[in-house]
Amino acid sequence: MNLPFTYDIRLPSAIPSRYENHIVRKLSSMSGQYLDHTAYDSLIASGDAVLYEVYELKRPELPGELLHGVSIVHPGRVGEEYFMTKGHFHALLETGEVYYILAGQGRMVMETPEGDWAVEELLPGRVLYVPPRWAHRSVNTSPHEDLVMLFVYPAEAGHDYGTIEAQGFRKLVVEADGRPVIVDNPRWLPPGGRK
Amino acid sequence: MNLPFTYDIRLPSAIPSRYENHIVRKLSSMSGQYLDHTAYDSLIASGDAVLYEVYELKRPELPGELLHGVSIVHPGRVGEEYFMTKGHFHALLETGEVYYILAGQGRMVMETPEGDWAVEELLPGRVLYVPPRWAHRSVNTSPHEDLVMLFVYPAEAGHDYGTIEAQGFRKLVVEADGRPVIVDNPRWLPPGGRK
Repeated sequence: MNLPFTYDIRLPSAIPSRYENHIVRKLSSMSGQYLDHTAYDSLIASGDAVLYEVYELKRPELPGELLHGVSIVHPGRVGEEYFMTKGHFHALLETGEVYYILAGQGRMVMETPEGDWAVEELLPGRVLYVPPRWAHRSVNTSPHEDLVMLFVYPAEAGHDYGTIEAQGFRKLVVEADGRPVIVDNPRWLPPGGRK
Repeated sequence: MNLPFTYDIRLPSAIPSRYENHIVRKLSSMSGQYLDHTAYDSLIASGDAVLYEVYELKRPELPGELLHGVSIVHPGRVGEEYFMTKGHFHALLETGEVYYILAGQGRMVMETPEGDWAVEELLPGRVLYVPPRWAHRSVNTSPHEDLVMLFVYPAEAGHDYGTIEAQGFRKLVVEADGRPVIVDNPRWLPPGGRK
């Protein structure tokens, strides 16, 4: 069956009324991604917090189809660094993504394979376009509120998590004097740095 | 330049803070599409009302890119039939579309080239997926409020307005006893009907 369908996104839970897949990412899936390893190990020891959840509507992974759903990044910090998603390139690099921010406050950290970077602020009512070629990670900068976004991307895009796991993002978003700031990631490996 | 970008959609105007193209469709562009020709001619004579507006963010029309923006269907009726969009197939038929309803009340009327039909209710907070192959027309069923939606579709999709202009949609949404009802379109031409 290939019929039109709808689902509702009701805040504050933001759990869509229909979904096929529910991804739950805990702190333990982000080994090596946070700058402050002591804070990371300490948080893992005190219970493996859920960092973010994704509710997906599944479609055939074919050109012309669109994958969509809701991502929810919970509030929190690992040291001075905010809770965030793993971040990824699309496996089919030349594919973009549209985000619509439903609730919360955050930043999207983005980067090309050539090492160009961009950080955009995420606010309710805002649309973000991530063009083809840009890896993307969402960061929740609110102390108490979920960051909730609707996402849409080409169904054939796929995910490449490995590149970011190996090289990190060039920029990090950390809290300083009570507000989010962008800093260099001292562990980032530039393009070709893994050779 | 191919950088990430954002725009804000602030209600009630819903005009995005950034756009490249603003389409304004008036009643006169819908000749023959409304059932009640007398009411249509009378409305045209009393001033050519704006039925709907589309604000588009332009992207290269390439696979992997996504076109997106805001559509605003104004409230009103032509006889018993509500203000609505022209409706179209995608020129590249095997491409879908995601809608997120920001404000208002309405229906999406959909149809395949084989004559299968579907009508979905549009409400704030609802996501609608129009799968590949389904023509789609948005209908504003509110007596006073704009129907405002964010849309996302593959940039290579294109538009085929001509098929619907020639054959109409199989179903119409009209007001009866103060509420929207779905009725057969007596002027609809079934697949092959134009031969």
